[in-house]
Order: sequence, then structure tokens, then C-alpha cells
Amino acid sequence: MSQEKDLSRRKFLKSGILAAGALAVGSSIFHTQVAEAAPEGGHCEPAKFPYPYVQRDPEKAKVDGYAGYGKLKCSYGCFEAIIGQLREKIGYPYTHVPTEVLAWGGTGAGGWGTLCGALIGAATAINYTMEKKDADKLVSELLGWYCDFPFPQYEPPAGKALEYEGKLGTSVAGSPLCHVSVSVWCDATGMKAESKARSERCARITADVAAKTVELLNAFHSKNFKAEYKNEAVDDCMQCHGKGRSLENTRGMMDCQQCHTDVDPNDLVDHIKRSWNMLD
Amino acid sequence: MSQEKDLSRRKFLKSGILAAGALAVGSSIFHTQVAEAAPEGGHCEPAKFPYPYVQRDPEKAKVDGYAGYGKLKCSYGCFEAIIGQLREKIGYPYTHVPTEVLAWGGTGAGGWGTLCGALIGAATAINYTMEKKDADKLVSELLGWYCDFPFPQYEPPAGKALEYEGKLGTSVAGSPLCHVSVSVWCDATGMKAESKARSERCARITADVAAKTVELLNAFHSKNFKAEYKNEAVDDCMQCHGKGRSLENTRGMMDCQQCHTDVDPNDLVDHIKRSWNMLD
Repeated sequence: MSQEKDLSRRKFLKSGILAAGALAVGSSIFHTQVAEAAPEGGHCEPAKFPYPYVQRDPEKAKVDGYAGYGKLKCSYGCFEAIIGQLREKIGYPYTHVPTEVLAWGGTGAGGWGTLCGALIGAATAINYTMEKKDADKLVSELLGWYCDFPFPQYEPPAGKALEYEGKLGTSVAGSPLCHVSVSVWCDATGMKAESKARSERCARITADVAAKTVELLNAFHSKNFKAEYKNEAVDDCMQCHGKGRSLENTRGMMDCQQCHTDVDPNDLVDHIKRSWNMLD
Repeated sequence: MSQEKDLSRRKFLKSGILAAGALAVGSSIFHTQVAEAAPEGGHCEPAKFPYPYVQRDPEKAKVDGYAGYGKLKCSYGCFEAIIGQLREKIGYPYTHVPTEVLAWGGTGAGGWGTLCGALIGAATAINYTMEKKDADKLVSELLGWYCDFPFPQYEPPAGKALEYEGKLGTSVAGSPLCHVSVSVWCDATGMKAESKARSERCARITADVAAKTVELLNAFHSKNFKAEYKNEAVDDCMQCHGKGRSLENTRGMMDCQQCHTDVDPNDLVDHIKRSWNMLD
């Protein structure tokens, strides 16, 4: 396995650096270099997953997320806002995370309007600091919060907006999908989907999501995270469609009603009768 | 900026290693180490984005993607299938990519059923090797292919299946969303959404998506990639709802009809009349 080979070559190299330190006693400049390198000699070896975390600042995440949107849009913006703060505080291994690799998430994945890109960047940042089983819980909580949050709330300093100055109308998407989030906001505000105002909205959402993600990470890593999100309407549908139930023909937590508009959540008996051709 | 500080510290350290090499002439063991390290001295510095790419094997991606699903599900499986092959061939910087960080994508993001996790892992792997503007094109093409592909096609060797032996029924999701992809398959095959057969299906989808992604990457990096996907039904809707059009109230490329079931794509005049309360 070339990974193993690579690893052992690095261990060899590392021991070489230490050997050089021994050889170089008497050369005070070089001695200083080795003394600095020794405790961190692992820099050349891949860091252990998950990466370390220290408490970070949600307010700074807003500013950095917003700025990141200006560079490579929402998914990169959110990812860089979180990884960037960890890089600043911890250094390696975060210095070796090329945050540009999440830029694909913009416009909900290459223009498709699927999962909001800010969430794609945020979720990946979360997973850097914890195992999948924990990341799943935080990501789920973040998506739930996103569905219910009246975006956007962040406001850049006056005169410093990326695309559009001043207050923007808000809306609650009810969905973690870019396509739905944008469409609901356009309906609520009368703004156009490709306008500068809409792009500004997404920049501010990037700020809001980055800050919430840092809050969740701070809570988790200080053992104060508790999953709170619930969607009772989805739970109702899953009474028949979910795991271990009579139909068990779907998965997920997105609001059912938003797409299944032919089902009245207040009259599920009608839905069942229609589905089974039992209407009078 | 601590990143800059960190970088310059490493340049300093690197020059120290070379200085040590000069000091150590005469020590043949150490000299060998330095000779090996010198051309690759940048290992301790963050690699430049995008990372290098060499032609890889789609068939191996299937096997690795399938195995990866067994470890940490679809998103990790697809990501590891691609990054792992690059790590094996190129070594650094792919040795420093902790592929576990994409595991959150399983079940379409922390259990939500949004973007299929295999696509999340694949898209991130794509973006490691190219800038956003190119990654967007490949990701879009991959999602389009996913919508139209009769999953699953990969078959593990007899007796070696992860969850369910033998052939599985196929379906065309018409969507890049996990929730839709699973539901359509359950409807088509009569299988349960939480069954071992469904999990096996997702493992095989991971294999199929990983292989397609390697094909797209091979094509792009040999200058043979050409975007082909089109969805004319979406284009029809975007004649009013899309960029620069009268409504311009949405974004995205997901099939409209799959959720907007109240619209007959063969009778858009009826849809327009209904929307404007112009029905007789």
C-alpha cells in the first residue's frame, strides 16, 4: 500500500530531522529550528481523524462567512469561515485543508438547487472535528434549524455590502434545499431569483449558517449539545411510511407537505382513502 | 495571520533541513535521507490547490466504493474510492485528506434524504482536482447522469455481498435527492426502505457513482470532457421562471414535475391560466 509506504518514509524523514539536530549541536541557529520542530514533528505525517477543536467565535464566523461568499459563494464561504478560524488558532492540520474543495456546493451543487450550499460547507466542517455518528446529529440539528430560521439576519456594515445595501426581507424556507429556499424568499419579497439582492441574501445566509454551526460545534465540544429539532408533521407521515411501519417506502426528514401538495396533513384519512381507492 | 506565520515557519524549517544536509556530508545514512527529502521538501507545506490528477481506474473505483460503503456508507465510500486511488498513485498531498470527513453525507445529509450522499462524496473529490468553474460543470453532468441511470448496476462477486446476495431490481430516480431515489426504487421493486436489500442497493449505487466520477475525471483531465446533460422539461418551465424571464422566481435543475404535480408539462397553458386565475 503506497499510503503505508509514504507514512513510513515520513517517519524515517522525521527521525532524520532529529538526527540532524544531534549532529548540529553547536550551530545555535539550526538548534533553534530543531527545538521548534521537534514537538510538532508530526506535521509531515497525516493527522489523526477527527481533528482537534477549540471554542470559536460565532460573530467572527459571520464576518468570515460573508467575505467567503464574495470569493467562492456559499459552500466555500461557510466551510472557510469555520476551518479558517481553526487554522488561525490551531494551525496544523487545518493548514492542510484546501477549503476551495467545497466550492462545488454553491447553488445547491453545481447549479442544481439541491442541498443549500452553506449547509454543505458547514456539515463538512462539522465532520472534521467528530466521528460520523456525532456529525450526523449536529448536521441534522443544523438542517432543522435552517428550515425554521427567518433568513437572512446578518447585516454587513453600512457601505460594505457585497451586492446590495440595506435591509432585506426575510422568509422561512421550511426546507434545507436551495431551490425551495430561494423560491420561497422570492415569493415572500417579490425579489428576482438572479438579482443582486438574492445573491446578497445568500451571502448573509452564509454568515448566519456559519455562526450557527460554530455555536453547535462549541456546544458539542463542551459537552453541551442536545438535539432539539423535531418535525411532527413528518413524524405523522412516517407512522405509515417510515421504518418498521406498514409501508416503509421512504427515508428522510424533509417536510413532506412541501412537495406532496395533494396530501392534506390535517386530513390524513382522506389521503389514505384516496391512496387505496376507498373514496365514496 | 497565523496561517502565514505557519507557512513561513515551515519554509524556515525546510531550509533548515537542507542546511542539515550540508552539515551532514560524510554521514551517508543521513545524506540519503536528505537526498530523498529534497525534491519533495514541500511535504510540510500545504499543497497548492487544485491537487494533481492522474488517470484512474473506474473498475477499481467500483470495488473501493462498494467496500467504503461497508465502512462509513455512501458519501464516504464514493469520496474514499476516488481520493484513495489518487493517494495510492500520487501520495502526498492525498495522504493528508481525511476521507472520513465526508461521512456526514450518508442518507442525504445526517438522515435528511437531501442530495444523495454518493454524489456529495463524488462532488467533493472532483473539486479537489479542479477550480469551482470546472467542478460545477462536472458535478452538474454527474447529477444529470444520476437522474437518468437505472441504479444499481454493480454486482459484487457471488458470496461477497455486504448486505444482500443476488440481483436487485433497478429504477431510474429522475432526481439527485436521496429521498426520491429511495422512494422510487421502493415503489419499483416492492422492497422496504430500511431493508438490507435497500442498503445493498445504496452500496452498489456508491460503486456505480464512483466509477462514473472517475470516468468524468479521466475525461476532463485528458481534455475530453463535454457536458451533455439536458432536461428540456426544466428548460420549458424556466422559460417563465428562469433567469431574465418574466417571473424569475427560482433556480435549479431538478425535474420540476416530480414535486409540482399540479402542473401538467404537456399543458402549460392550463398551468398559466390556473396561476393567473384565468380559468373559465
